[in-house]
Amino acid sequence: MAHATKSGYASKAAARGIQQAGLWAGPRRHVLDLDDFTRAEIDEVLLNADGMKEVLGRGVRKTPALRGKSVVTVFYEASTRTRVSFEQAGKILGADVINVTADASSVKKGESLLNTVRTLEAMQIDALVIRHPHSGAPYFVAAHLDTSVINAGDGTHAHPTQALLDIYTIERMRGKLSGKKIAIIGDILYSRVARSNMIGMRKMGADVVVSGPPTLLPPGFKPGTVVPEGQPFEGIRVAARVEEAIEGADVVMVLRIQRERQDAGHLPSLREYSREYGVNVARVKLAKPDALLMHPGPMNEGVEISSEVAHGPQSVIEDQVTNGVAVRMAVLYMLCARARNGGS
Amino acid sequence: MAHATKSGYASKAAARGIQQAGLWAGPRRHVLDLDDFTRAEIDEVLLNADGMKEVLGRGVRKTPALRGKSVVTVFYEASTRTRVSFEQAGKILGADVINVTADASSVKKGESLLNTVRTLEAMQIDALVIRHPHSGAPYFVAAHLDTSVINAGDGTHAHPTQALLDIYTIERMRGKLSGKKIAIIGDILYSRVARSNMIGMRKMGADVVVSGPPTLLPPGFKPGTVVPEGQPFEGIRVAARVEEAIEGADVVMVLRIQRERQDAGHLPSLREYSREYGVNVARVKLAKPDALLMHPGPMNEGVEISSEVAHGPQSVIEDQVTNGVAVRMAVLYMLCARARNGGS
Amino acid sequence: MAHATKSGYASKAAARGIQQAGLWAGPRRHVLDLDDFTRAEIDEVLLNADGMKEVLGRGVRKTPALRGKSVVTVFYEASTRTRVSFEQAGKILGADVINVTADASSVKKGESLLNTVRTLEAMQIDALVIRHPHSGAPYFVAAHLDTSVINAGDGTHAHPTQALLDIYTIERMRGKLSGKKIAIIGDILYSRVARSNMIGMRKMGADVVVSGPPTLLPPGFKPGTVVPEGQPFEGIRVAARVEEAIEGADVVMVLRIQRERQDAGHLPSLREYSREYGVNVARVKLAKPDALLMHPGPMNEGVEISSEVAHGPQSVIEDQVTNGVAVRMAVLYMLCARARNGGS
Repeated sequence: MAHATKSGYASKAAARGIQQAGLWAGPRRHVLDLDDFTRAEIDEVLLNADGMKEVLGRGVRKTPALRGKSVVTVFYEASTRTRVSFEQAGKILGADVINVTADASSVKKGESLLNTVRTLEAMQIDALVIRHPHSGAPYFVAAHLDTSVINAGDGTHAHPTQALLDIYTIERMRGKLSGKKIAIIGDILYSRVARSNMIGMRKMGADVVVSGPPTLLPPGFKPGTVVPEGQPFEGIRVAARVEEAIEGADVVMVLRIQRERQDAGHLPSLREYSREYGVNVARVKLAKPDALLMHPGPMNEGVEISSEVAHGPQSVIEDQVTNGVAVRMAVLYMLCARARNGGS
Repeated sequence: MAHATKSGYASKAAARGIQQAGLWAGPRRHVLDLDDFTRAEIDEVLLNADGMKEVLGRGVRKTPALRGKSVVTVFYEASTRTRVSFEQAGKILGADVINVTADASSVKKGESLLNTVRTLEAMQIDALVIRHPHSGAPYFVAAHLDTSVINAGDGTHAHPTQALLDIYTIERMRGKLSGKKIAIIGDILYSRVARSNMIGMRKMGADVVVSGPPTLLPPGFKPGTVVPEGQPFEGIRVAARVEEAIEGADVVMVLRIQRERQDAGHLPSLREYSREYGVNVARVKLAKPDALLMHPGPMNEGVEISSEVAHGPQSVIEDQVTNGVAVRMAVLYMLCARARNGGS
Repeated sequence: MAHATKSGYASKAAARGIQQAGLWAGPRRHVLDLDDFTRAEIDEVLLNADGMKEVLGRGVRKTPALRGKSVVTVFYEASTRTRVSFEQAGKILGADVINVTADASSVKKGESLLNTVRTLEAMQIDALVIRHPHSGAPYFVAAHLDTSVINAGDGTHAHPTQALLDIYTIERMRGKLSGKKIAIIGDILYSRVARSNMIGMRKMGADVVVSGPPTLLPPGFKPGTVVPEGQPFEGIRVAARVEEAIEGADVVMVLRIQRERQDAGHLPSLREYSREYGVNVARVKLAKPDALLMHPGPMNEGVEISSEVAHGPQSVIEDQVTNGVAVRMAVLYMLCARARNGGS
C-alpha cells in the first residue's frame, strides 16, 4: 500500500479548522499498524488532530463531521480506556457509535470471527474498531471487509492509534521527533504499544533506545547493540542497562507489566522487576531535566512505575489520554468522511 | 386484533420517501408474532422497508423521523446480531437507543420481569425490544404495558422481525411469495425463526415445505403428509426426505442447529445430522438454478450448512442482514411515529 | 460548601421552561449527598425538575440543553434502574452518554479507582455518574477531579438523586413536606436511600418516623425515642412498633430488604420479617386515607411489601420512576450547563 503525500492541503485543512475541512479524506481504508504509513501521512494525522483537539477543548464539543456515519467497536478483550476513547471520539464527530463486547455477543454461540464482522458490515457501518487477543486478527478481518477497520490492539502485535497519540503528544510538547532520544522501558517482547511506537518513532527519525529483562526482549535484540539492518526494527538501540537507556533521554516511556508474564516464567518477581527496571525518581533524574514521562496505562503503580513519577511534574500521562481522543477523532474522520456508496 | 388495509396510502408514503412520509403510522401497538398481521399489513411493512433501505444506502444515513423517541432493548439472552440490528435501525431514525442486558441489570437482584419492564416504561420510552428465553414472555409484557413491545425472539416461539426480513428479502429478489416453493430445513420444532416464517409465508401464499429429523418436528408434522386443516400450521407440507423438500425450491432456508438439542437426545451427532440434513452443494443443486440460499445466522458452518453453500453465489445471507436493518426501521417507525401523549 | 439562595431566578427559569432557561446554572460542582444542600437549593432542583417533567411528557422528548456535553456513567454495581434513568435523562437533554461497567472495564486489570476516573476525566467529560459498593468512594473521586461527580449510590452511605426524586414526588402530589409525617420502614442501618431521605426530608421540615428490626437500626436509634440533638440524624423519631410509625402518616416509604443481610444474621427469616415489618393492606390502613405508598425499587414483593400494596391505588412507585428521570435531568443540567473551559 503506497500513500501519496498530501501534507500540502492537510495543513490548509488544519488551518481552516476541522468543521470547514470536510474535504480532506485520504485514500487509506484501514489503520492496522504504522508500518504502512509514510512519514507524511503520520504528519497529516497529527495536523488533523490539532483541529480535533481544538474541538475537544470547546464548551460544546460537537461537530456534524460524521453525522449519519456508524462506528462499531468490537472488543474481544475488556478495555475501558480504549473503547471509551473511540466512543467519545466518534460521538463528538456526530457519528453513531455501537458497542459490541465479546461477553454480550453471539461469540458465545460459537460464530466465527469472520461471520461476526461480515454480519456487522452488512448492517451498513462505516468503521469497525476491533480489539482482539490474537495478533493479526484485524488484518484477517480487513482482508475480507470493504468497511474500514481500525486495529485497537491485537494480541502482542500492534496498537497503532496508541503510537499515533504518543507521537502526537511528544511532537506537540517538545517539537519534532527527529533526533530525539526516546527510552522505552519494560516488556518489549509482548507489548503491542512498544512495537507500534518503535515503528512509528523510527519513521519520524527518533533515536529509540529500549531496555527490559532479556527474557522480554524480541529475538535479535541484544543488550548493548543496535538491531542490525535488514532485521525487523532495524536501528533500534538496545541498552545494556536501564540507566543507559534513560540517560539523557527526551522521553521515558514506561510499559505496562502484564502479570501473566510472571506466571509464564518470564519474570522472577514483581519486586525484583521493580528494583531492576522500575522507573522511579532516581532513574528519571538521569533523563533530560524536562524529559516527558509517559505510560500507555493502565499502570501498576509501584511495579513498573513509582507513584511519585506517575503523578509527578514530568508525567504527561493524562495528556496522552486527552490526545488519544483527538488522534482517534482524526483517524475516524480520515477513514469515514469520504463519501461512500451504500450497498451491502 | 383486526387491522384495516392501508396499503393505499402506504404505497404513496413509500413513493414520497420516508422523510416526507411522517403521516403513516398504523394503529398497531405491538409486534409479537405474524399471526395477527394481515397480508395487507405485511405488504405495508415491506413497502415502508423500501423507503428505509433507500435511507440505509445513503452516504449519510440519518433521518429525524424518530427524533425525541426512546427505544430500549432488553435482552435476557445474548445476541449481537439482533440487538445491533435494532440499535442501528433506531439510531438511523434519530431515536435514542438504550441497551439493557440481563447480565448488567437488576435481574440479578431478583426483580420480576413485569416490574423491570414497568420501570422502564415509567421512564417514558416509546418501544421496548425484548428477547427472552421463555416463550410468551413478550406477550405477558405487552399485556401489562402501554408502551409498544417488539418481540426480538422468545424461547422457541416466535421471531417476527426475522420472518419479515426473510419475506422482504425473497419478495424483493424474486417477486411475490405467492406460489413460490420455500424449503425450510432443520430443527422445525424448536426454531422460533421457522415458526414465524411458516406463519408469515403461508399468509403470503407460499408453498412451504419443511424437513428435519423426526425428533425435531412439531406434533402433527408427519413426514410425507400435509399438516391438516384446523391444526396449527395447516397447509405446511412435511417432506419425507430432505431432498424432496429442496427439489425445485425457489428458496432453501437452513435453520441453525442448537447444540443444546443434542445434549437433550434429540440429535444423534452433529456429524450424522450434517450427513442426513446438512445443506451442501449437492443438495442445493436439486433446487431451482437461481434458488436463494438463506440462513438466519449465526451459522454452524460444516454442520447444518456447508461453507461452500454459505458463502456461495446463491447465498443471500448478508442481504438478509442488511434487509433486517431496513425492516426493523420500518417496524420501529410504524410503532413509534404516531404522536403520543407522555405522562405515565 | 455554602450555596447562595438562587430561588428567585430559578423560579423564573422554571416559568420560562427549560429550553429558554439556558442561563440557570448553579455554582455547585458535585452532588454527593443532600447534607451540603440548603433547603433553597433543594427547592431549586425541584423547580427545575418541573420544567424537565414538562419536556419528558412531550411526544418529542428532546432538548439541545446539553448538546456537546459528555456524561459518563461508571457502575461498579449492577443497576438497570438508576443507570437507565441517568442515560435517559442525559440523552433527552442532548448530551452524549457513555456507559462503563465494572465487568467490562479495565477494573479487571487491577487499575486503581482513582486512575480510572482520572483517565475518564482526561477524555474531556462533563459529568461522572458513579455507583460504587464502597461508602465514600464518590467523595474520594470528587476530591481529585475537576469534573462534576454525581453519587448514584455508594455502599450503605448515600443516594442523593433518589432522595431528591422522593421529595419531588411527595411535594408535587401532596404539597410541601414541612410538617408531613413520613414513615420509613425497613433496613434503616444499611439503606443509602433511607439515609439520604432522612437528611433531605428533615431539611425540608418533615416529621420523619422510622421503624425496623433493632438489628437494622443505626447506633443511637432507640425504639420509642427521638434521635437526640447533636447526634447524626437528630430529630428523627424511632417508633416502638411499625404500626406506630405508620399511624396517621402522609407517606409510607418501604425499603428494600437486602437478602444478604439475612446471611449476616441481621434478619431471622424473610417470613418473619414479612410478618413483623412487611407493609400490607392492614398496616397501610393505619396511615392517612390518601397516604402515598413509596418504594425505591427493585421490590421483593411478598417480603417487605405485599403485592396488593405495591400495585394498589395508593402506590406511587411508578411516579417515582418517572420523576427520577426529571430530577436527574435537573441535576445534570445544573452541573453541566455552565460554560466550561476545555483543557485537560
